[in-house]
Amino acid sequence: MEKGILLYEGKAKQIFQTENENELWISYKDDATAFNGEKKETLLGKARLNNEITSLIFAYLHENGVESHFVKRISETEQLVQKVEIIPLEVVVRNVVAGSMAKRLGIEEGTALTEPIVEFYYKDDALGDPLVTEDHIAILNVASNADLAVLREKAKDVNKHLINLFDNLNVRLIDFKLEFGRTSEGDILLADEISPDTCRLWDKETNQRFDKDLFRRNLGSLQEGYQEILSRLGGASCTK
Amino acid sequence: MEKGILLYEGKAKQIFQTENENELWISYKDDATAFNGEKKETLLGKARLNNEITSLIFAYLHENGVESHFVKRISETEQLVQKVEIIPLEVVVRNVVAGSMAKRLGIEEGTALTEPIVEFYYKDDALGDPLVTEDHIAILNVASNADLAVLREKAKDVNKHLINLFDNLNVRLIDFKLEFGRTSEGDILLADEISPDTCRLWDKETNQRFDKDLFRRNLGSLQEGYQEILSRLGGASCTK
Ligand SMILES: Nc1ncnc2c1ncn2[C@@H]1O[C@H](COP(=O)(O)OP(=O)(O)O)[C@@H](O)[C@H]1O
Ligand SMILES: Nc1ncnc2c1ncn2[C@@H]1O[C@H](COP(=O)(O)OP(=O)(O)O)[C@@H](O)[C@H]1O
Ligand SMILES: [Mg+2]
Ligand SMILES: [Mg+2]
Repeated sequence: MEKGILLYEGKAKQIFQTENENELWISYKDDATAFNGEKKETLLGKARLNNEITSLIFAYLHENGVESHFVKRISETEQLVQKVEIIPLEVVVRNVVAGSMAKRLGIEEGTALTEPIVEFYYKDDALGDPLVTEDHIAILNVASNADLAVLREKAKDVNKHLINLFDNLNVRLIDFKLEFGRTSEGDILLADEISPDTCRLWDKETNQRFDKDLFRRNLGSLQEGYQEILSRLGGASCTK
Repeated sequence: MEKGILLYEGKAKQIFQTENENELWISYKDDATAFNGEKKETLLGKARLNNEITSLIFAYLHENGVESHFVKRISETEQLVQKVEIIPLEVVVRNVVAGSMAKRLGIEEGTALTEPIVEFYYKDDALGDPLVTEDHIAILNVASNADLAVLREKAKDVNKHLINLFDNLNVRLIDFKLEFGRTSEGDILLADEISPDTCRLWDKETNQRFDKDLFRRNLGSLQEGYQEILSRLGGASCTK
């Protein structure tokens, strides 16, 4: 497998072509950004931590019958994935009120929800990734109502498995963001990453943060928090 | 009917008790506010215009089988209404993209929707009246799913009648905000006001604004715009 040309560079990853037109080479970056790119820093080691954690989580989901774009880990900071056409929606699942939801509704961060909820945000940096309703999504023409039902179902299924995974590691899964894409066959497939950049993960006993809020809110070393998650997950999938 | 003690003063109206515990005395104010109270001005005549327009519209809706809290017009700036417990949701109906929706979704103002849509905003000045999903509303515990279905249906019904009303006056109904409340019998009843403060109303030919955007965006005299709507509606219901 060889790395082709750079197709796209996002805030956290670079996407390269491969000789297989259905596969992409993802290279994680050491950059941390927050507040739609307003806060920005290079944090050495973040690329490795997110690549390892995402790889372990997608492998775990696969073992539990949840398919994703993940093909294989290539190196400490790189992985091979199935190419999809990303649906420009951030699918957010919440088990506990935190972050923008706490602010929006005036509910204290840490309040547990009786049922997980799914929210959709329109993935558009220029617009600041706004919360959207199903009607908005229909107007934007990015997903049909049937698609949204599939996204909700898949997101809740991922949630169920991730809660189990983290619960065993003494970690509370507060919320997380997923992205999905369409394969060349037209199927909706889980894509992007699942890492402490895209999840809120709190220690069950101490409420210590192990996620990007460490960076957003200057709560301590991001790398130490992410390393703690990687260690509890059993460490890198391959230490060469 | 006598005016009792002042129960509540909002941004646009004062609410007084009456000797009938099921009725309230609403006195419209000459104040205009926008951007959650950041922009503020006294505009002489606004109280009369909104009271007359709201009275005419609620009377028109009543004639068309749509009930509301409106009991009767008391004076140029006052009206008697049925007391309800307001559901803290702003129920917004949109026929054409404008205002916050244009900004949120990056769609040009003036884009017609193929179907009207209903949005819910949590009526809370401290939070800036945020857009909320049905899940958020359930969590806030302000309305059940069954209530929301009723709100949607009633809002769309009002929309149908208002489109007719304004269409005959050569005015396009772009969008509007409704508030509903619960009566002592537990029924959901249309309340608050329907005026150029709470609707976007554009001249069908010229796209001239006859609504609060005149004030929000400094587009011209608010009173002249509101007077145009009142005149097209046939003038004050009683000119004494
Ligand atoms: N399997 C995939 N196929 C195509 N694009 C993908 C896939 N997985 C993730 N992407 C996209 O890769 C881009 C780069 O990721 P990232 O750096 O996180 O970008 P962003 O700054 O947009 O969040 C994102 O637009 C993401 O949606
Ligand atoms: N029939 C009613 N019974 C009780 N309260 C009402 C009724 N109609 C409107 N209200 C409430 O009267 C208050 C005053 O109106 P307004 O000045 O527009 O207030 P606001 O600044 O909250 O928009 C609002 O809180 C509104 O919800
Ligand atoms: Mg990203
Ligand atoms: Mg009001």
